[in-house]
Order: sequence, then C-alpha cells, then structure tokens
Amino acid sequence: MLSREAGATKSGQTSMADDSILVVSGGVGGAKLCLGLQRVLPEGALRIIVNTGDDFTHLGLYISPDLDTTLYTLAGLANQELGWGRDDETWTFMRVMESLGGPTWFKLGDGDLALHVERTQRLAAGETLTSIAADVAQHLGIRSRIIPMSDDPVSTLVQTADGVLGFQEYFVRERCGPAVIRLHFQGAEAARVSVAATQALRDSSLRAIVIAPSNPYLSIDPILAVPGMRTALRGAGVPIIAVTPIIGDAAVKGPTTKIMRELGVTPSALSVVEHYRGLIDGFVLDARDASVAEQIQLPVQMCDTLMLTLDDRERVARCVLEFARRI
Amino acid sequence: MLSREAGATKSGQTSMADDSILVVSGGVGGAKLCLGLQRVLPEGALRIIVNTGDDFTHLGLYISPDLDTTLYTLAGLANQELGWGRDDETWTFMRVMESLGGPTWFKLGDGDLALHVERTQRLAAGETLTSIAADVAQHLGIRSRIIPMSDDPVSTLVQTADGVLGFQEYFVRERCGPAVIRLHFQGAEAARVSVAATQALRDSSLRAIVIAPSNPYLSIDPILAVPGMRTALRGAGVPIIAVTPIIGDAAVKGPTTKIMRELGVTPSALSVVEHYRGLIDGFVLDARDASVAEQIQLPVQMCDTLMLTLDDRERVARCVLEFARRI
Repeated sequence: MLSREAGATKSGQTSMADDSILVVSGGVGGAKLCLGLQRVLPEGALRIIVNTGDDFTHLGLYISPDLDTTLYTLAGLANQELGWGRDDETWTFMRVMESLGGPTWFKLGDGDLALHVERTQRLAAGETLTSIAADVAQHLGIRSRIIPMSDDPVSTLVQTADGVLGFQEYFVRERCGPAVIRLHFQGAEAARVSVAATQALRDSSLRAIVIAPSNPYLSIDPILAVPGMRTALRGAGVPIIAVTPIIGDAAVKGPTTKIMRELGVTPSALSVVEHYRGLIDGFVLDARDASVAEQIQLPVQMCDTLMLTLDDRERVARCVLEFARRI
Repeated sequence: MLSREAGATKSGQTSMADDSILVVSGGVGGAKLCLGLQRVLPEGALRIIVNTGDDFTHLGLYISPDLDTTLYTLAGLANQELGWGRDDETWTFMRVMESLGGPTWFKLGDGDLALHVERTQRLAAGETLTSIAADVAQHLGIRSRIIPMSDDPVSTLVQTADGVLGFQEYFVRERCGPAVIRLHFQGAEAARVSVAATQALRDSSLRAIVIAPSNPYLSIDPILAVPGMRTALRGAGVPIIAVTPIIGDAAVKGPTTKIMRELGVTPSALSVVEHYRGLIDGFVLDARDASVAEQIQLPVQMCDTLMLTLDDRERVARCVLEFARRI
C-alpha cells in the first residue's frame, strides 16, 4: 500500500497517490532519505517537515541551511562533492567579498545566493517561509511538499565552554570544535507549528511518519521543541518510525556522536531509541548493529542504512516504507 | 601647478600633492574623465562628488549605480565590453534567479553582488554611504576620494507619458524609451550635502571644480538639487569648469540628446552652457564644435573630448587641468 515495489509500474504509482508519508528531517542525512522516498513513492506522496533552527541572518541575508539542502537535494541540484550547496556552482561573490574585506567564513555560492536574496526580500515583504519554500520547490520542479517546522523564528544556540554560539558559528566557523554543554532553542517556546505542517499531520491520506536519520539533538530536537509538535505527531494516529543516524558508535556524518559524548550520552543506536522514547513506534536499526536489536523494546527493522549511492537511498526508503506498512 | 605635465617626473608629482581637484560626476562618462585625472594627478589629489539619485533598492539590495561605476572604473575593474559592471564577472546568480522565477530585468553579476550585499548590510547596521564608499575604495586600492553627494536618500523619478518611473525602471527596464516630460528628485529638498562633500569643497588645497561630461539632467542636476550644493560649489572660490557631454548634436553615450529634445531643449553644447549658467566659469568644448565657441560668453577650452582609449582619458584630463590653471 505504501511503497512502490522495485518493479512497480507507472499505473502502480498512480493507484497510491492518495497515500502520503511525512518525514521529520534536518539537512544532509535526512535529505538523502527524502530523495530515496521521493523516488520510490508516487508523485506528491512525500511531505517533509524541515528543521529551521539552523536558520540565521548573514550579510543581511536570511539563510535556511536545512531547507536549502532539502530543496537542492530533491531537485537533483545538490553538490555531491561538497556535501552542501548547489551543483554547478561558481564562487565569484566570495572572491570579491574577500577583496572588499567582508566576512568569508560562511561560504555562499553565486547560485545559492539567488535563493537567499529572493527569500530575504520576500520575507521582508511579508511572505511566509512556508509559502516561499513551496514556490521555490515548484520552480525547481520538486513534487514533494517541503514544509518549514514553523514560520516563527527559532534559533539553535550552542552553549559551550567558550560561551554561547549561534548554530552556524558553532557548526561552520568553529567546525564543531568547542565541547557542547547544552543546546537551547531560542524562540521555540513562542513559535507555532506552521499551518502547512499541521495540515500535513492532519491529512487523512497520512500513512506513516518517519524521523529521518538526522542529528537528534541538533536537527530533530528543534522541531520537537515547537509547542504542539509532539502532540501533533502522536495525534496523527499513524506509526512513527525513526531511522538510526548511528552505526555502531559512529555517526555516518557530522558531529552527532561527538555531541552525544559531550552531553554524557553513550553514542549508540540504543541511546537514540531512548532519546525518542514515547514518540516513536518503531526503529530502523543498521544491520551491523543486529546484536543490540533485542535490547530495543519496540518493533525493529534491520537495514543497511548507509546511503552512499542513489540506489542506497531508494533501498533504505523501501525498507522504511515496508516497515511502516508492517507495524 | 595643477596638472602633471605629459613629461612630468615622479618628483614633479610629489610637489603637487597638496593641491586637489574636485569633480562633480555621474556614472560612465564622468568616471572615464575621473580615471584620466587620477592617472595624471598626484596620488590623493582627486576627489569626486558622485550622483546618488540613481540609487535604488532591488531584490532587497541597495544599489548605487554611479558610485559603483566610479569605484570599478578607478580601481581598473570596470567591464569595458559591457560598459557597466565588473570585469572578470560571472552570471550564475542571474541564471539561478531566473530559474526561481525572480526578476531578471536588472542584471547583477556575481562579483558585483558582493558590493551590493556588503553595502546593504552595513547601511542597515547604521553606517553611512560615505563611510562605506571610502572603505570599499580603500580595499580596492583607489587613492582618490569617492564621495556620495548625500547620505540622505534622493531618488530621480522620471515623469513620462506612460506615468512616473523610477530611474532604473526608465533607464534599464524601459531602455529610455518613454518620452520624458519632467524629472523629479524625490527627497532632494530634505537631503543634506554629505559631510565629506562639504569638507572637500572647503579644503584649502582645492584648486578647481570640474563638472564631468555626464548627463546634465540625469546625473548632475540631482547633485545640484541637494540644498546648499550650488552655494558650496560657488563658495569654494575656485574655477568651476564643465566638460561638454555633447559633440555636435549628439551625446557620446546614453540618452542625453533624446531627453534634451523631449524637454524642448536643442541638443548642443550651447544648451549645456546655458543649463550651467551662473554655476560655471569655463567650458571645455569639443574641437569639432569650434564654430560655436564665440557664442559662449565664458572662457572656452577646445579639446577632442571623445574618450575611447586610456590615452584619451589622460589627454582630456590634462586639457581640463591646463584650462583650470589658465582661467
């Protein structure tokens, strides 16, 4: 019912267009799974609630890294080599900015800038992040719905031994160097779940919710920190499945395990399950961690969760959909 | 005293470093003369008061076309082929902006954008146009002072048969097509001459003021419309010389003669002299117009005013300086 089987025909896709899957996601890792899901699901069946806690204003431009990564990835425009930004990019802006003595720690490609400039001016004109994301997705030919978690500002702040850093200062400028003491989602208490997110969660077509293999602390927690989000996720009345961002004691990418250690948590899939306790109904565990499966007090699906190739992304997507259908 | 003679030595330059020349200028044509002057004058001797009536906000970015043209030209970065913008430019931003459905009628190069983004955010942070221009000039290695006419907003509006257009809408989007009925410098009455412009005009080193061969109506009049500017120019107590923007009945570039006709003025150097009556003490006439020289009731210097090559720019600069010294 949920997934298009490997050999499904075009007509097989069409028959499932009334079912939808909602992913709760951060940037790179989550976007990979979303691309896999977009490719195996019928057109329009995928909705993604994206973290905006990483958003910040730089050079006067509103930058939404996870939204951008999701948009570029689903449009087939993601820069595979860099792991961020757009493919087919040029860097004249940064070169000139440097010559003018401007800040250069946050790299902005010339093409990437177009999205930031366009979004910044539309936000200033009163448009919502949601409506801009929807319009950009349409222009880029994306058939999935990409939904910011909130149209209100939420800023992930990283309290470190060196003081409090904005997320991008911590993540990009300091390359996750300082030890994390605590994370704070500034503005979250006053933020509202976006209307589009609420609609997607209440949609009668919804069949499952997937917590993407994103960093639970930096990418998923800001989403869950928006008042009403947890309740809305649980209230959707469909299975909620988390996909592990950890294999053994290592994260596929990024500072997940470093942060877990700094926060006093053992880096492991079990810790992620524990982190999501009360929220999820099932867990996709990497096949390499089969030995810990029986310690998880929830339905578990084993799968090779490493997504290096496009085939990997589709394979993990099918595995997740199959699991969702089963539990 | 004023000009470095064609064969002047390095020591000859140094001896004149205490004399300064002030140019009142618009964009392209004026910047060409300024480049010539910068090359023949001692380092630091050139000050330029630049029109900001063309400034506008586009895509949320503050764009100052005449300031930018002056900066790029004096830094040796002007795009000779296009006649505007930067040399060595790329256009990825515009290509992506188009794919996002954004406006594309005003072309912004990737490198050019760095200046607009940097200036916009610094203005928003409370810095003045003057201080940003000075800082950018320094970073680009420019040894002349480039001074906005005012730090207050002045917007040239073009009243046409099709309605009132912003200057860039008229100039770029409509390519000067609609007939001009009247020009209005919105905000001019409340604008103040910039502190730096006042200082440059009061500087005891000042030896002459040059009205650049810019469009008198579109580029020089907005500067003269700032209350106190005319008085400050005359009050400087040095010769004021205008360089003709017209040869015969044609402008070297741009819509000058078209606008003159539309405003009911005969396109000719004589009309320009008449336009500046009461302000100027001398006029640099193109040698091709020698026959009208005796109709000008002011000291006249004949010169080939066409500036196609770098040598031309230096030659016209020397001619202007020689004239200033003489009257």
